Amino acid sequence: MPYPETTDAFAVTDIKNWSTFKRQELPLKKFEDYDVDIAVDACGVCASDVHTITGGWGEDIPLPLCVGHEIIGKAVKVGPKVTTIKVGDRVGLGAQKGADLTCAQCKSDNENYCPNQIDTYGAKHDDGTIAQGGYSSHVRAHEYFTFKIPDALDTAIAAPMLCAGLTTYAPIKRLGAGPGKKVAIVGLGGLGHFGVLWAKALGAEVYVISHSPSKKEDALKLGAKDFIVTSKEGWAEPWKFTFDFIINTADATDRFNLADYFSTLKVSGVFHMVGFPDKPLPQIQAQVFAPNGCSMGASHIGNRPEMIEMLELAAKQDIKSWVETIDISEAGCKEAVERVYKNDNVRFRFTLVGYDKVFGKRS
Amino acid sequence: MPYPETTDAFAVTDIKNWSTFKRQELPLKKFEDYDVDIAVDACGVCASDVHTITGGWGEDIPLPLCVGHEIIGKAVKVGPKVTTIKVGDRVGLGAQKGADLTCAQCKSDNENYCPNQIDTYGAKHDDGTIAQGGYSSHVRAHEYFTFKIPDALDTAIAAPMLCAGLTTYAPIKRLGAGPGKKVAIVGLGGLGHFGVLWAKALGAEVYVISHSPSKKEDALKLGAKDFIVTSKEGWAEPWKFTFDFIINTADATDRFNLADYFSTLKVSGVFHMVGFPDKPLPQIQAQVFAPNGCSMGASHIGNRPEMIEMLELAAKQDIKSWVETIDISEAGCKEAVERVYKNDNVRFRFTLVGYDKVFGKRS
Repeated sequence: MPYPETTDAFAVTDIKNWSTFKRQELPLKKFEDYDVDIAVDACGVCASDVHTITGGWGEDIPLPLCVGHEIIGKAVKVGPKVTTIKVGDRVGLGAQKGADLTCAQCKSDNENYCPNQIDTYGAKHDDGTIAQGGYSSHVRAHEYFTFKIPDALDTAIAAPMLCAGLTTYAPIKRLGAGPGKKVAIVGLGGLGHFGVLWAKALGAEVYVISHSPSKKEDALKLGAKDFIVTSKEGWAEPWKFTFDFIINTADATDRFNLADYFSTLKVSGVFHMVGFPDKPLPQIQAQVFAPNGCSMGASHIGNRPEMIEMLELAAKQDIKSWVETIDISEAGCKEAVERVYKNDNVRFRFTLVGYDKVFGKRS
Repeated sequence: MPYPETTDAFAVTDIKNWSTFKRQELPLKKFEDYDVDIAVDACGVCASDVHTITGGWGEDIPLPLCVGHEIIGKAVKVGPKVTTIKVGDRVGLGAQKGADLTCAQCKSDNENYCPNQIDTYGAKHDDGTIAQGGYSSHVRAHEYFTFKIPDALDTAIAAPMLCAGLTTYAPIKRLGAGPGKKVAIVGLGGLGHFGVLWAKALGAEVYVISHSPSKKEDALKLGAKDFIVTSKEGWAEPWKFTFDFIINTADATDRFNLADYFSTLKVSGVFHMVGFPDKPLPQIQAQVFAPNGCSMGASHIGNRPEMIEMLELAAKQDIKSWVETIDISEAGCKEAVERVYKNDNVRFRFTLVGYDKVFGKRS
């Protein structure tokens, strides 16, 4: 067993062979007073993992790199200053594992916008090591970004909530989803299905907008009130001035006629993006915002209070993400990222499991 | 005197000769029960007038066209159902002179987003006539869009408030300007100088962002706390996470590095546009909104309560727009639009005056 100074990781070593994972030992950062070591039991497969290892978001990535930032496992070691987690707790870690916790953003519960934030994988630590993600035996994170998982939640089902769940929950909450509000979710994938679940759980009336008529049944099953197909010219016409806000989870925004989407918003409505395509947005005129005074924006994951609130909401209302599990291995990681890349029947998230079989019982 | 069925107008007859105004009689719409006839005394010269007559916002404009939508004059006739205006009142008319007043937008004080709104000039009325603006002897408008001008306000100084004033006041108010808020105004022209005046009057700390160092003195005189020049690379660096929102009044947004501007916003800050360039915005990645979860939007003028509130605020706080007056005539109109087009020392708005000399005392 390589731990405690290294993790046993499935890592990509070359972006040209981005779906080839090689099992290898990679160093962990120096253990510090607020750190928690987690023996990983499950990790969701996020589209970010694929954008990163393919070089889609930039080819300058540190290699070898082990991705994965929807992590649930067992706390196996806690630093002397840790107060919120104890050894043996079942805990989760999302896409962020550090921040300065002293800047104006951190002090106003916006640590997810801290300029010194540390991503769960790919970031360079102060000691020179590279942060490695959850396709591995262990991860090490600051306790502020380590969350106790409510007992009612199943590990494999809860894992994707740590990034995809929070990424949709935070803006849906901040934009005011609740009774009397109409919310549209664009795209029904890993992010989108959470969008429907959260907006509905918060009491809003939810609509799914998609180019795939085949997603209708799932949308309604998840709780959407109606399903809007964008494949026909003029699809937006009957929906003008309808939605308080839109959460756009699609990867294909570069091919959207944004004016159509904007036109479905109420006055001062918001078109909010949480999926970041590799390609730029379509070029628009400033005037496209004018017919209803709408706006377009994006957000980056969410903060600690939102994470805790979301997990509690899921536990209380018995909200279940739709996941398919894949056993972790070189082949399992390959299958997962390739199917996410090709959008090959992913309904709606993969969770890598079976860690004990590969890494043994860790403590 | 052509009135009451026609107006004596300075109109453009050809977008190729967009600064050549020919005095001519043009028909007014049929007089209806809620209409108010205004004998014009002053009209501000708006950049919209220039975008329209040059074909910059689209070459399909009805000709001949008389522009001008920052109008103050005397009510000389009121329809039998008019209750808010009486003959003899000094009244103003902005960029909108009608709406259905029955749709969801109108019923929620968003008549400026009514899909059936009628622009003060260029719109086609139900009776087939074309709406003509304030570079003329008379205009006819629905009373809902006709505003009594507080006694404390001078006609030439108040006229530009009817469009440029409202266009900036409405978003500054809706976005929450007030004590403790930091607001940046991009561009110091007709719109921008109102932005500074209103944000300051509402209690916010105001900053001007401009590419022209020469505007600094005026910015400070108008009440800005500081002046930020964008001509040097890295200008945004010291201002990261600073502003609650930005009002962008610039006509040159197509040449902006938007990521720089966005970076100066606090978390969830808004980059709000009120100046609409002829050219499209620069193409951006969705990711540029992510470092602070900001958004970008625009608005279209403002509503009736905001207009009334703005005029009262100006009267109460003795707020004066900076205007240069030009006597109305074929040559005067030409000079005004050409100098606005070339941005030739316009500080910060032209108001056409001297209507009685040209059109006589009207009643």
